[in-house]
Amino acid sequence: MNIVIFDKNSLINENTMELNSDQAAHIRKVLKLEKGDFIKIGEKNKNIGIGTIVDLQHKKALIRIEKTDIFPPSPLNTDLVIAMPRPKVARRVIYTATMLGIKKIWLINSAKVEKSYWQSPYIDDNQIERQIILGLEQSCDTVFPEVIKETKFKPFVEDKLPCILENKNGYLLDPYSNKNLPKDPGKEKSILIIGPDGGFIPYENKKIMEAGAHAYSMGTRILRVETAVTAAISRFI
Amino acid sequence: MNIVIFDKNSLINENTMELNSDQAAHIRKVLKLEKGDFIKIGEKNKNIGIGTIVDLQHKKALIRIEKTDIFPPSPLNTDLVIAMPRPKVARRVIYTATMLGIKKIWLINSAKVEKSYWQSPYIDDNQIERQIILGLEQSCDTVFPEVIKETKFKPFVEDKLPCILENKNGYLLDPYSNKNLPKDPGKEKSILIIGPDGGFIPYENKKIMEAGAHAYSMGTRILRVETAVTAAISRFI
Repeated sequence: MNIVIFDKNSLINENTMELNSDQAAHIRKVLKLEKGDFIKIGEKNKNIGIGTIVDLQHKKALIRIEKTDIFPPSPLNTDLVIAMPRPKVARRVIYTATMLGIKKIWLINSAKVEKSYWQSPYIDDNQIERQIILGLEQSCDTVFPEVIKETKFKPFVEDKLPCILENKNGYLLDPYSNKNLPKDPGKEKSILIIGPDGGFIPYENKKIMEAGAHAYSMGTRILRVETAVTAAISRFI
Repeated sequence: MNIVIFDKNSLINENTMELNSDQAAHIRKVLKLEKGDFIKIGEKNKNIGIGTIVDLQHKKALIRIEKTDIFPPSPLNTDLVIAMPRPKVARRVIYTATMLGIKKIWLINSAKVEKSYWQSPYIDDNQIERQIILGLEQSCDTVFPEVIKETKFKPFVEDKLPCILENKNGYLLDPYSNKNLPKDPGKEKSILIIGPDGGFIPYENKKIMEAGAHAYSMGTRILRVETAVTAAISRFI
């Protein structure tokens, strides 16, 4: 945790916030801070600043907001469309993509996605919010990404993807493409599209390309989804 | 597993190999292959080819080598020097760096590395070899990276690092550098140097730069070590 994220609900008065027990434990055990120490803070979707720890107990901490005058880092100029991974992996992907600066994630269906994934507690709304906060607290950002679940492939790819891709570069990762993802995709807004382990099935690839995306690989090696996500997003940093 | 790695010890005669129980279970349960099916194979540090499953039992599989006539993918033109992460993370870093195509990894000491890490069973020689094989089996490569443990910072950075960096670009990741790691580091041989979570201490940064490296960041966000490893290596793919 390199910054404490708070929102209106954390405020107990105009300039004091109360942290949850996870955050309080982290401050004591990992950061080894004490009452009176300064700590970096960030208001949800707003500025970054500095607070003072005015109370620090076992499961509770109070922080006085000194100032919040620094803009959060700029968002990356790409969004992410990804076939729903196994729920534990999906959770890490949300955390990692948030840490890297992605601000919009579509989790979409694919022939290789098991139906049960969509009901998993690992990716219910609370868990998603938790992973987002952890990602932002790591990277010192405050801007929450939007995470959208698209449980039907065809309506998404036919009705929504063409609009999403309009005036943007659509980069479909395909381990078998002989074109390498550009090293420097430039400043135009882009959409990265990543399939399940082993890739989308040919029908899905075709539909995604009909919606306006083009296929690229990340080199000649076949990467796990988690690794491909970070490797591909890295081109936009 | 996209390829089965074998070596001389796996051979029971000139053209038949016996797989270990992990590999046999993976073939049955994940790949869902049967006796008579073809499977991609690769000989340790040699070529890639095709085999036929001639026997497949609970804990054992026999594969007949049909041909091994394809060169493994080219190594990346960067090696990796990394402060020993927590052992569970170190294990994943070795797996991921291998998958991405790194062929030499120095695990080095740093003020933030706990002494106990070096004795962890997660990174004993057997575990390291296991992670390397898993990484190669994912990425369809056969060339084992060399993993070197350097348990003393000063002798490594003073006596060895200058030679390692000779005629190469030394990229030290430093989240506080205002220079971004080049998007396309070019074809010159490079060495990526990555510190612990939170970075090397200033003394260590200074010593590494005296040995010939230069400091770069991966954007304005602070990344976890695991994520930084993949993000930085990705520039070389």
